[in-house]
Amino acid sequence: MAGERRSLIVVSNRGPVSYDRDAAGARVERRGGGGLVTALRGLVAHHDVTWIASAITEEDRRVAAEGGAGGVVLVAHDQSAYDGYYNTVANPLLWFAQHSLWPHESAPELDVATHRAWSEGYVRVNENFAAAVLAQLDQNPAATVFFHDYHLYLAPALVRAARPDAMLAHFVHIPWPGDWSVLPEAWRRAVHEGLLANDVVAFHTERWARSFRRSCDDVLGQGARPRVTHHPISIDVSEFEALAMSDEVCAHEAEIAAGRGEKLIVRVDRVDPAKNVVRGFHAFGLFLELHEEWRGRVSMLALLDPSRETIPQYAAYREAIAAAASAVNERFATDEWLPVDLRIADDFLQSVAAYKQYDVLLVNAVYDGMNLVAKEAPLVNARDGVLVLSENAGAYAELGEWAVGVNPFDLLGQAEALHEALSMPEAERARRARHLKAHVRANDVARWLRGMLADLDAAAA
Amino acid sequence: MAGERRSLIVVSNRGPVSYDRDAAGARVERRGGGGLVTALRGLVAHHDVTWIASAITEEDRRVAAEGGAGGVVLVAHDQSAYDGYYNTVANPLLWFAQHSLWPHESAPELDVATHRAWSEGYVRVNENFAAAVLAQLDQNPAATVFFHDYHLYLAPALVRAARPDAMLAHFVHIPWPGDWSVLPEAWRRAVHEGLLANDVVAFHTERWARSFRRSCDDVLGQGARPRVTHHPISIDVSEFEALAMSDEVCAHEAEIAAGRGEKLIVRVDRVDPAKNVVRGFHAFGLFLELHEEWRGRVSMLALLDPSRETIPQYAAYREAIAAAASAVNERFATDEWLPVDLRIADDFLQSVAAYKQYDVLLVNAVYDGMNLVAKEAPLVNARDGVLVLSENAGAYAELGEWAVGVNPFDLLGQAEALHEALSMPEAERARRARHLKAHVRANDVARWLRGMLADLDAAAA
Repeated sequence: MAGERRSLIVVSNRGPVSYDRDAAGARVERRGGGGLVTALRGLVAHHDVTWIASAITEEDRRVAAEGGAGGVVLVAHDQSAYDGYYNTVANPLLWFAQHSLWPHESAPELDVATHRAWSEGYVRVNENFAAAVLAQLDQNPAATVFFHDYHLYLAPALVRAARPDAMLAHFVHIPWPGDWSVLPEAWRRAVHEGLLANDVVAFHTERWARSFRRSCDDVLGQGARPRVTHHPISIDVSEFEALAMSDEVCAHEAEIAAGRGEKLIVRVDRVDPAKNVVRGFHAFGLFLELHEEWRGRVSMLALLDPSRETIPQYAAYREAIAAAASAVNERFATDEWLPVDLRIADDFLQSVAAYKQYDVLLVNAVYDGMNLVAKEAPLVNARDGVLVLSENAGAYAELGEWAVGVNPFDLLGQAEALHEALSMPEAERARRARHLKAHVRANDVARWLRGMLADLDAAAA
Repeated sequence: MAGERRSLIVVSNRGPVSYDRDAAGARVERRGGGGLVTALRGLVAHHDVTWIASAITEEDRRVAAEGGAGGVVLVAHDQSAYDGYYNTVANPLLWFAQHSLWPHESAPELDVATHRAWSEGYVRVNENFAAAVLAQLDQNPAATVFFHDYHLYLAPALVRAARPDAMLAHFVHIPWPGDWSVLPEAWRRAVHEGLLANDVVAFHTERWARSFRRSCDDVLGQGARPRVTHHPISIDVSEFEALAMSDEVCAHEAEIAAGRGEKLIVRVDRVDPAKNVVRGFHAFGLFLELHEEWRGRVSMLALLDPSRETIPQYAAYREAIAAAASAVNERFATDEWLPVDLRIADDFLQSVAAYKQYDVLLVNAVYDGMNLVAKEAPLVNARDGVLVLSENAGAYAELGEWAVGVNPFDLLGQAEALHEALSMPEAERARRARHLKAHVRANDVARWLRGMLADLDAAAA
């Protein structure tokens, strides 16, 4: 039953905590960020959870050598294996494939280093995770194993081979593409067979789940045998509302409010090609070109969190972002008006402050498994702001009817969507904002968790 | 019945003839090239065919003004409409989308010019074609209309609206991708609704047909109602064998034979990013790096036909091809040995000569609807040459079991496939070569035509 206390082994690359040493050499614990950790906090509160994750820092490796701490098992991988696993296979190879970002004309080129990163990196790290899971199952054979995301596609089959009766579930947090031919046949078979070793495979939306069923058929010549479901992840509403009212966020908000003009367009993203930041600036430039009446009256505040900076594609994209922002400013800025205010920094509280202040929120992702910004921001926005939302974000399936939908490749469409959002009559803005808030409140992360747990019960039955 | 004489209206952008004026000002007729025109010649021989195509040259426009000639109706479009239709929408927008070539991070960007090319180019030219079809149907109401390819997705619905009872078929000669989100919703709906207005929609392979059924479901929320079939196009075997024995081809062959070394790898393609020429050179370089024993003994002869040179992506790709070939030569060439012999020219007879001389034929297309090189070349090859074939070429479904299959993105895999092909024991090479020839002989273009005509009969019944 979904309400009962359960024994769970959660497996994800990043864990809920990471360790460092302070200046005095004492161990300090940092709470992990990211939507996944937040979403799973509800699990830890109500169930018996052991969390298996990679040791990332040097101090993590010491904790791992000590056997973990407080319900968290850290797995220390060989450094070069982890590098190939993380920086070559998971990002960019799988991430780019699943967000359809590879320019197939020229990339990827799976060279000798890529093959080595697969066989001596991705495969090895998955083996390490599987071994750690099996060790936990030895202690607690009835526990359910809950794998997360694209780092761990191979582990479920390894666990299944050793524990035919174990209960295994996998949540894929990113899009599932229709075509996997960017991976050699043996690799794409391993990915699909790994996932099919689970009892439940889940995605955020019906679109990605349907795509998975089809690719099982294409790659393996068979339909998916596990339960394939979809549950849209969400946020902890009361916690998020409290955060938005905190002194720190209010201080940031005062700064933004003091600097803003008549209308404010906000975007909040990681620096990632999947987020479509460059096209967003191009679209804003086109909007200013086509709608002169808005010049001097509206600015775009782009708050971007640096991400995966050791990966060349990400470094190049950060430069392209800066260049695109500058181009708009060079063309349109005046002494009194800066069209694009680009801030690249890890400052989540500033982002929450901007959520409260936007008139238009731009979420134009090329592809996105869900996109939690589209849920967080409307929940706490105080200006009946309008959500402009990519049809390729998972959130569109839930929120599209109250958003202004955009095609992420359609520059003119995005420019006109900004105009439509800025020009929308107040009553209509209020109506949509009300629906967005109500939907997020009624579909919070607890509901996502209940859905997943009910799937496990159904699979076990 | 498939054997009966039929009345057909064939509709394609390029027609079977084009007109020019010679130095004396007299009209001269040039026979169109390309697989489609060749494939459909059998139709013209056995049935009553009116062929509707675009007027391309100035002289074509004069012929159009005179009402056509010899069963060919030429449609003269407004020049700027044709430019938007051909150079922006058909190529590159649709071609790149259907061959999965767009680097979604940065392109396409559907700007004002793209929107205009759609509404004032692609839509208009399709209207012109529909009007020309309706004029023919006025004269011959019982004729079957046979549309071809990605230039004409909108025309069938326009014809259907005016002639609910007409018999309409459409053959799509290029891949059908799983995801159409690169087109704004209204455009992708129009593409799918246009095709669904036919009685029969056909592709080369089951893979593309299945993908079409799925995208109808995704884009329109309904399955395909017409008959969706697949028939692999092929070549005129006896004509092609005769061509291979012609004096001109034999002269070219003597030149190639005189210049060749111990082993010869051949590739023959249009200059097109879909053909994967650059990765082919990279893979050949990697092969020479990994297998030193082949240096000095094997060359790659790349015969490339210039294509779509007014389109920036094609000009850039031609430069990337030249650079990649040079890089291999700079690294490995000696006074006695040129590893890559790159020839960019429109010289089909030279290509046929090379077909006879290869030890390995490399067809590594990123995606390809069919790829007729993979059928033409093994038919006339005289050295029990080995076919190295991309799993993403339509031809792979028929020929894969006798080829060395490659993943087009897998550089190491392609390098090792070249090694495997060059090292294959003679008896195995001969066995595979025999099967390839037998398959092409037994599955020639006449069989493709019979299949299409049988579909029309089944749809009519």
